[in-house]
Amino acid sequence: MIAVLKHGTTPAQLQHLVDWLKRMNLDVHISEGTEVTVLGLIGDTSKVDMDLLASLEIVQSVKRISDPFKQANRMFHPMDTVIEIGEAKVKLGGGHFAMIAGPCSVENEDQIIEVATRVKAAGAKILRGGAFKPRTSPYAFQGLGTEGLELLRAARKATGLPICTELMNIHHLDQFHDIDIIQIGARNVQNFDLLKEVGKTDKPILLKRGIAGTLQELLMSAEYIMSEGNENVILCERGIRTYETYTRNTLDISAVPVLHKLTHLPVVVDPSHGTGKAYLVPPMAAAAAAAGADGIMIEVHNNPSKALCDGAQSLTPDQFADLNRRVNIIREAMQ
Amino acid sequence: MIAVLKHGTTPAQLQHLVDWLKRMNLDVHISEGTEVTVLGLIGDTSKVDMDLLASLEIVQSVKRISDPFKQANRMFHPMDTVIEIGEAKVKLGGGHFAMIAGPCSVENEDQIIEVATRVKAAGAKILRGGAFKPRTSPYAFQGLGTEGLELLRAARKATGLPICTELMNIHHLDQFHDIDIIQIGARNVQNFDLLKEVGKTDKPILLKRGIAGTLQELLMSAEYIMSEGNENVILCERGIRTYETYTRNTLDISAVPVLHKLTHLPVVVDPSHGTGKAYLVPPMAAAAAAAGADGIMIEVHNNPSKALCDGAQSLTPDQFADLNRRVNIIREAMQ
Amino acid sequence: MIAVLKHGTTPAQLQHLVDWLKRMNLDVHISEGTEVTVLGLIGDTSKVDMDLLASLEIVQSVKRISDPFKQANRMFHPMDTVIEIGEAKVKLGGGHFAMIAGPCSVENEDQIIEVATRVKAAGAKILRGGAFKPRTSPYAFQGLGTEGLELLRAARKATGLPICTELMNIHHLDQFHDIDIIQIGARNVQNFDLLKEVGKTDKPILLKRGIAGTLQELLMSAEYIMSEGNENVILCERGIRTYETYTRNTLDISAVPVLHKLTHLPVVVDPSHGTGKAYLVPPMAAAAAAAGADGIMIEVHNNPSKALCDGAQSLTPDQFADLNRRVNIIREAMQ
Amino acid sequence: MIAVLKHGTTPAQLQHLVDWLKRMNLDVHISEGTEVTVLGLIGDTSKVDMDLLASLEIVQSVKRISDPFKQANRMFHPMDTVIEIGEAKVKLGGGHFAMIAGPCSVENEDQIIEVATRVKAAGAKILRGGAFKPRTSPYAFQGLGTEGLELLRAARKATGLPICTELMNIHHLDQFHDIDIIQIGARNVQNFDLLKEVGKTDKPILLKRGIAGTLQELLMSAEYIMSEGNENVILCERGIRTYETYTRNTLDISAVPVLHKLTHLPVVVDPSHGTGKAYLVPPMAAAAAAAGADGIMIEVHNNPSKALCDGAQSLTPDQFADLNRRVNIIREAMQ
Repeated sequence: MIAVLKHGTTPAQLQHLVDWLKRMNLDVHISEGTEVTVLGLIGDTSKVDMDLLASLEIVQSVKRISDPFKQANRMFHPMDTVIEIGEAKVKLGGGHFAMIAGPCSVENEDQIIEVATRVKAAGAKILRGGAFKPRTSPYAFQGLGTEGLELLRAARKATGLPICTELMNIHHLDQFHDIDIIQIGARNVQNFDLLKEVGKTDKPILLKRGIAGTLQELLMSAEYIMSEGNENVILCERGIRTYETYTRNTLDISAVPVLHKLTHLPVVVDPSHGTGKAYLVPPMAAAAAAAGADGIMIEVHNNPSKALCDGAQSLTPDQFADLNRRVNIIREAMQ
Repeated sequence: MIAVLKHGTTPAQLQHLVDWLKRMNLDVHISEGTEVTVLGLIGDTSKVDMDLLASLEIVQSVKRISDPFKQANRMFHPMDTVIEIGEAKVKLGGGHFAMIAGPCSVENEDQIIEVATRVKAAGAKILRGGAFKPRTSPYAFQGLGTEGLELLRAARKATGLPICTELMNIHHLDQFHDIDIIQIGARNVQNFDLLKEVGKTDKPILLKRGIAGTLQELLMSAEYIMSEGNENVILCERGIRTYETYTRNTLDISAVPVLHKLTHLPVVVDPSHGTGKAYLVPPMAAAAAAAGADGIMIEVHNNPSKALCDGAQSLTPDQFADLNRRVNIIREAMQ
Repeated sequence: MIAVLKHGTTPAQLQHLVDWLKRMNLDVHISEGTEVTVLGLIGDTSKVDMDLLASLEIVQSVKRISDPFKQANRMFHPMDTVIEIGEAKVKLGGGHFAMIAGPCSVENEDQIIEVATRVKAAGAKILRGGAFKPRTSPYAFQGLGTEGLELLRAARKATGLPICTELMNIHHLDQFHDIDIIQIGARNVQNFDLLKEVGKTDKPILLKRGIAGTLQELLMSAEYIMSEGNENVILCERGIRTYETYTRNTLDISAVPVLHKLTHLPVVVDPSHGTGKAYLVPPMAAAAAAAGADGIMIEVHNNPSKALCDGAQSLTPDQFADLNRRVNIIREAMQ
Repeated sequence: MIAVLKHGTTPAQLQHLVDWLKRMNLDVHISEGTEVTVLGLIGDTSKVDMDLLASLEIVQSVKRISDPFKQANRMFHPMDTVIEIGEAKVKLGGGHFAMIAGPCSVENEDQIIEVATRVKAAGAKILRGGAFKPRTSPYAFQGLGTEGLELLRAARKATGLPICTELMNIHHLDQFHDIDIIQIGARNVQNFDLLKEVGKTDKPILLKRGIAGTLQELLMSAEYIMSEGNENVILCERGIRTYETYTRNTLDISAVPVLHKLTHLPVVVDPSHGTGKAYLVPPMAAAAAAAGADGIMIEVHNNPSKALCDGAQSLTPDQFADLNRRVNIIREAMQ
């Protein structure tokens, strides 16, 4: 951490500040220039309150040098993390790519088994489906809940695909003991107590970026999970909130190469929520593959216009199969 | 709800759509123009999936006419809600104004009692203080927790001020049984299961706007609480995330008059988190008062440069007293 | 255009409003429901002030049905526009793809001719290079100006590549008479008088999206050019301003398929300015190709670390050649 | 400027970098820590390309210490600038406050003289009115142009109020020779050639913040004007673009105290464009006054529902008079 002091700082003020910093067990390197004096703080600066330091009378500005995330940091873990999922041991990360497909909401046994069968035939490696649904309105359909988990298990049994579904509530964690990937949604990405709880399991966690979350915040949320012992974190870009209204969110494709530089964790892209419109899903999924995503998460419904939730952004199984074919060619081109 | 159909829709397509809508128990008014046909949907449209409707082949666009929030809607409840807080029966809303002041974090008994005593003397009506702290980093100070609640109770006993503190975790709800205002923070404003739980209590709930939350989302979150039976919701503007970096957040003062038009619930402003810098707190608190806020929430610390958390944005008790005096004059000018 | 009237509007008020609208030569269709009355306004609504209408006592809300751009609108011009550039008649749009490459700033004859020669060899079809540079600071290098245009002409002569460079000032238009593509930068996209002037020429205009411009604003700016008679407009996505700070801008790849749906004009992507970092250019250029861009604009410098401007985001000629090869494979995969 | 080097930088690399920096006439202070080496660059760093420096192999990050604006910087000019306007010598800044009021567009002589007379009676010190109007659509009313300037002169003659109106085009500058305040609109705030031209005059310039402009960009644009010799710059906050859609823009009231800290130039707030709705203008104008604005710019129309432009956000003269009274009380409270 570096602190730049204002012109005119007296030796006594400087000494006072240095003493205070040393009491936090930091080494302080002083570099005095003609206009400014710069302090380099060496040691564990993760507990220094940058804002407080910056607010002191004599301090002009403060800059953090090292990233505040540690276990997620590629600097300390240069090799890509490869995550193994479910009994099928599907791999994600480090060159292993997986399509994750399925309906927004699990609706009934016929629907989920038909969709699972068809996306598997088209090349999907993992089945997704919502049982507990976070809805902005208390009056909207909130998902089948526990019954939805049962139906996902039935679809896994029928197809062998590992299953991925969202956990919203600490109280439900027991019910998720055999879910293959626990998804933490965008609205819960800073529900820190929930993060700590899933950090105590050994399950793969698919962690979505916040609705207007920075990449650093996403990594700090991954750090919450990892600091409890669970290193199986998959990061998911799902679009960010901007002023543009033609799309539901602005899918930030650049998050993929940026995250690959910052962290060793695998990165998945969700173009269905990221755009909110089915016609945008194939080009944006292709873009994600071109940018190096380790996985893509696609909403597929056997009958989009009858979907109970988010049908507007679902592909049909045939559209998904066509997309999957193109994605494979793009991935080869980028190797 | 209004649906605009594309030019070239056939009578058969139109009939098919109308039948589908009627099966959802909606009345459909058809207005055929030369270029477009407009459908007016009458009835309970809160469960219609706007995005799905908009995605149909023949539909050009869809518009919701009525706001999706009901219990929070001023249209159905024109009188301002007045909320009574604690044994002291402090009133907020409908012309009743309250200053809410105290430290970011409760640190120890001396600190919280001294701050409580001094802010009370300066005109504060409610004491705030963090016991459970949501921190972006798992390595940062997370608050005194249960012990912090005890210290707040001691400060209430010493001063008579009702106490306001943040709840982050469903499991902690029992510990909050005698807290006078339960705060739901910006990061949990769409933690819908937490909202439902506090909706089952009869406590005043101070609900902060999301980090990049829309006003409609804030009202829908209030609706989650109210739909479970708790109508004592206080809305809190705390700054939104924008591209500007000189301030931590952009405090959206216009949220006050906009919310007053949309809802009968009281509106409080938090300029301390909203700006992140102490020198900005007095002018922005004055601005909030001028815009008609029902309350203002200010971080005050007896020794800001020694605060364990967010000292950079805390006022001293003397600065708070000076601010309070000015706010009172402004409130009179605006009546 | 549709206006929704408030519950409780009297017949006299309704008649008064309808008369006012008819005086603007609009046909008015009235659809009275139990809760709301809806007016459909037919005719040329482009001059109706939506905000004024929405502000009237009895009006609840107003919605524009048809897009406000006309000549740029795909609805009235379903076929893709193909633009021919320069004496070389390079085509862009409607399936014709072009790489546009060159340095941020033209620096001297050796530099521009070397870069031009090398990007041509690597597959570029058009040479870009800045002569007049918009710089945030008056103290920064502002480009070689007129001399830079001369050097671009020399590079065109040496390689046969058409040249593309930015016009900032109406006074300079004469100097651009033989420039093959006139670029209008992000900061001038709503400099309406400049748009009108280039609209009076027959030059291809490369129009960049505003720093925080909506897609509709971009199309309205294209409309300014087209309404003066020049239909040769190329739209350019160059990243938008968001709260995220890891990248200079957030490159909105979804702009490509959205614009292709809304307009017949070709769409180019600039990943160099869009990200600000060289390591992000190849993956984001690949993503743009996957999403269907008609062209990609890449900064290439023979010695990035000595570039006078924006060297940090420039590729070397070798990196550009490698990228171009991959882009071609991706484009085939998406056909 | 400070550059932080990566762990593992060799002495040869360090020397190479230091030599390069010294060739730019910078003094380099080297501070070697155990984990990082920090370089302090002393001298005129305004021409160093931060992005280029940051992109070098061995550089971890770069930080600018001093603000890049000089003439606008309060550090070098601690006293508030006071600007004298027109023959009436109306003062703005340094404790001198002025209400600027008038219609969005000048429409005809009766209108502008009536509005001018009434806003003067209500306390306005300066008349505003649009003659040349920047409109998003080429099909919208573009203002009366030259005739509008004539009508403003007539209103000045009738009332003695100085006049303020927008310049959009370098070619029109001659026509503005006797306009008392030349306004540069949000869309032209980075039209650098226009800024340089008005910088060559001695007129007061009212410079609006960009639609999504940072405060630093606003100050750099002021710097463009000042670097040409014109120090009479008035900064104007007019709302920024965010994701929130209830208001046209998010009026950033905190810009007032932040700008007062950064610069000596006066700061005006425009709540009419900042919110887009008349009912929000009085509370937001009051908020601006409370936050310390040196002036407030209000749209007033004698018949808002007949205004040719932006009537939805105009106050009536009576509403303006009431607002003015309250603003005066608030200003006293804050002194």
